[in-house]
Amino acid sequence: MLFHVKMVVKLPPDMPVERANELKATEKAMAQRLQKEGIWRHLWRIAGLYANFSVFDVESPAQLNDILMQLPLYPYMEVTVDAMCRHPSSIHEDDR
Amino acid sequence: MLFHVKMVVKLPPDMPVERANELKATEKAMAQRLQKEGIWRHLWRIAGLYANFSVFDVESPAQLNDILMQLPLYPYMEVTVDAMCRHPSSIHEDDR
Amino acid sequence: MLFHVKMVVKLPPDMPVERANELKATEKAMAQRLQKEGIWRHLWRIAGLYANFSVFDVESPAQLNDILMQLPLYPYMEVTVDAMCRHPSSIHEDDR
Amino acid sequence: MLFHVKMVVKLPPDMPVERANELKATEKAMAQRLQKEGIWRHLWRIAGLYANFSVFDVESPAQLNDILMQLPLYPYMEVTVDAMCRHPSSIHEDDR
Amino acid sequence: MLFHVKMVVKLPPDMPVERANELKATEKAMAQRLQKEGIWRHLWRIAGLYANFSVFDVESPAQLNDILMQLPLYPYMEVTVDAMCRHPSSIHEDDR
Amino acid sequence: MLFHVKMVVKLPPDMPVERANELKATEKAMAQRLQKEGIWRHLWRIAGLYANFSVFDVESPAQLNDILMQLPLYPYMEVTVDAMCRHPSSIHEDDR
Amino acid sequence: MLFHVKMVVKLPPDMPVERANELKATEKAMAQRLQKEGIWRHLWRIAGLYANFSVFDVESPAQLNDILMQLPLYPYMEVTVDAMCRHPSSIHEDDR
Amino acid sequence: MLFHVKMVVKLPPDMPVERANELKATEKAMAQRLQKEGIWRHLWRIAGLYANFSVFDVESPAQLNDILMQLPLYPYMEVTVDAMCRHPSSIHEDDR
Amino acid sequence: MLFHVKMVVKLPPDMPVERANELKATEKAMAQRLQKEGIWRHLWRIAGLYANFSVFDVESPAQLNDILMQLPLYPYMEVTVDAMCRHPSSIHEDDR
Amino acid sequence: MLFHVKMVVKLPPDMPVERANELKATEKAMAQRLQKEGIWRHLWRIAGLYANFSVFDVESPAQLNDILMQLPLYPYMEVTVDAMCRHPSSIHEDDR
Repeated sequence: MLFHVKMVVKLPPDMPVERANELKATEKAMAQRLQKEGIWRHLWRIAGLYANFSVFDVESPAQLNDILMQLPLYPYMEVTVDAMCRHPSSIHEDDR
Repeated sequence: MLFHVKMVVKLPPDMPVERANELKATEKAMAQRLQKEGIWRHLWRIAGLYANFSVFDVESPAQLNDILMQLPLYPYMEVTVDAMCRHPSSIHEDDR
Repeated sequence: MLFHVKMVVKLPPDMPVERANELKATEKAMAQRLQKEGIWRHLWRIAGLYANFSVFDVESPAQLNDILMQLPLYPYMEVTVDAMCRHPSSIHEDDR
Repeated sequence: MLFHVKMVVKLPPDMPVERANELKATEKAMAQRLQKEGIWRHLWRIAGLYANFSVFDVESPAQLNDILMQLPLYPYMEVTVDAMCRHPSSIHEDDR
Repeated sequence: MLFHVKMVVKLPPDMPVERANELKATEKAMAQRLQKEGIWRHLWRIAGLYANFSVFDVESPAQLNDILMQLPLYPYMEVTVDAMCRHPSSIHEDDR
Repeated sequence: MLFHVKMVVKLPPDMPVERANELKATEKAMAQRLQKEGIWRHLWRIAGLYANFSVFDVESPAQLNDILMQLPLYPYMEVTVDAMCRHPSSIHEDDR
Repeated sequence: MLFHVKMVVKLPPDMPVERANELKATEKAMAQRLQKEGIWRHLWRIAGLYANFSVFDVESPAQLNDILMQLPLYPYMEVTVDAMCRHPSSIHEDDR
Repeated sequence: MLFHVKMVVKLPPDMPVERANELKATEKAMAQRLQKEGIWRHLWRIAGLYANFSVFDVESPAQLNDILMQLPLYPYMEVTVDAMCRHPSSIHEDDR
Repeated sequence: MLFHVKMVVKLPPDMPVERANELKATEKAMAQRLQKEGIWRHLWRIAGLYANFSVFDVESPAQLNDILMQLPLYPYMEVTVDAMCRHPSSIHEDDR
Repeated sequence: MLFHVKMVVKLPPDMPVERANELKATEKAMAQRLQKEGIWRHLWRIAGLYANFSVFDVESPAQLNDILMQLPLYPYMEVTVDAMCRHPSSIHEDDR
């Protein structure tokens, strides 16, 4: 099952650089693990914004929920979630 | 170059069914051609809405513009466009 | 899998009464069938608005999508969809 | 009578973890008590958001008001309230 | 039980004057009946807008719903509904 | 002359309880004085929100302005003001 | 008593030119009469928009309401109304 | 004097093609004349939208107003206008 | 040339009273100077809001920009700016 | 390739003046370098707002992203990005 997630990150400008870098590093490590597992299927930066469009391939809404809640940067995010499915005009039989 | 496009379609409810089906058929044909050409890289239906999230891989903003303007359903759409690029946490070297 | 759906219906005021009643009757029949099948789990009227909050229990986003698209009143609706899951403070083990 | 309530929680990211956990624990205890009493009839997590959709079965708006104001997390919430009633297409005679 | 209702009326400018006047007359008659019955407790015009703030004193959300749905001008309205209750700073013991 | 005022109060969650209670007490005293003087004609709590709908009966916009600016909680409020007048469908000759 | 009114006019593009000109002419005549009477104190065009900012000097909200409702273009307007009063930093003793 | 103008065009989908083309042709002719006169200094298409960002170099707001009101497509546009001036970080002495 | 400016002031509630009064005093002095110079042509308080509608008569957008940026309260303001010009229905030949 | 960027800067009012000036100075230096390189093609101040409209001429969305992320004031900005291309009514063959 696919979820489209838009994440807009707003870190407090006065956050110590080390703290920010630590958060970003752990976020990156988690994101890359999930990508390798095929769960975080797409991750694109929205050009010019500290934000991304992502596509998650999960077993259930609950799994998506648990993943997002564990993201180190989650407390600093505005998140929008939309469930997706195969489009009738898609040339793929599955939901690529 | 990648563009994320959200298309929300609002056909007039009193449009004759034949006309609507004709529009949808030509839209589908064009969408499938562009998918086969690798231009319309992703096309997902937003579950429950007559809307989609798409990812276009084009040479320039002008090419994206020309493509969208030629979509038969374009006059009935609310369109949002965002340029995208590779995310620093992506495991891919390119912009998949 | 649960989806929360808000449906706001806006029928054209000059629609012939018979046509409106016909749409509402077929909508009601479909809604009642789906409720009996346990798919349309909850259907409440938002007091004072021609709108409802509904909870659907479906197999996939695709199934939700197909159901909503077949609703006779769908072309006259503004629809908002949110995926839901069990809340950590729920006293139920499942997603009631 | 039924009220649909959407609660979006925004805890300050720099709140000490102990304080946050304490708030969440007392919130959970209160929520579970009210669920057992049949007042907090439904509590679902909106997948991916620190937010929930709830349905309260109360005697009056005043009772709803008192309950929500006493929630430990209330000062950190954006709350939307809608009164609900039985939908004319519901298969139930009451407002389930 | 009190409900605060904001009604913004938008009649099609090209509606025949007789039809508009007929709607307004039947709306006025119904409004005045409900005021006399103590149900439509307050009805004020928002100065400069074809809109009103109203306060309804009803037995239940369902009763409010039925009343509003029967207003002749309802199909031409944008309606906002909020449940109200006695304010802790009110000098009245009841919900005047 | 009548003004409809919506006040949404947002106290900083980390404000010392004593300070908050002191503000609320002085606010309540002022509100009750103005109600007794017939200036603050109606004060209702919006059920579930730390907010109220009020109706002020004042001599001029300036008087309304002075009153609201002196409310102890004013700096913590989002305020919306609408002038009102007698509705053509009101059964009252005045602006009750 | 002063009211600030923003009027955004949206005439149907397919309205016959004669009908539009007739509406505009009667609107202009009424506007100029009210300006000469000192009621419509200021009337400015918002540059580039078919819209204006106006300041009305009236006896009561009811008078403002009656005036605006009689404007020939009113059915084609989006209107925003704000009551105003003398600013504490104004160099005028009155509300110029 | 510079004005930044965003124009979003929404032609009725059922407008006869000839009529639409005629409007677009006269619009184009006027736009090109104004560009040659240095008044319409910049005209860019927003990629993927039937919309443009423009920069006008005019003598006064009144001149901008007159120009925009004469655009054949104006009745079908949503227009946003912002006055601009030289930025303190610009390398130009004038307002290029 | 005329600019309509809406200024909504939001001072931090915990700002020391002396600091706030100092800001307001210097703001008032500057505002009164500019009013005497005929630049700040109108300044009205929006009744009930810590906000004003102002009309500035300046030589250019740059002059408006410089003035507003120097206002002591500017960092605490939400500002909206609209250029204005003489309305075709105005009884004045100039832009009063 | 052209991007239209709107930047609205919101510096914390209590930021030490030296810190603010330092940020602005480094921002100005970077902006002027990029202007000289022809990358930051246009930079205009929106009159009356601490905001600008800019036009960037870059090789790719990624380049735009890198540039904006390096702006010293970026953490204090609300940024909107739109890709642009030559308008069919432009008198230029390129995207000036």
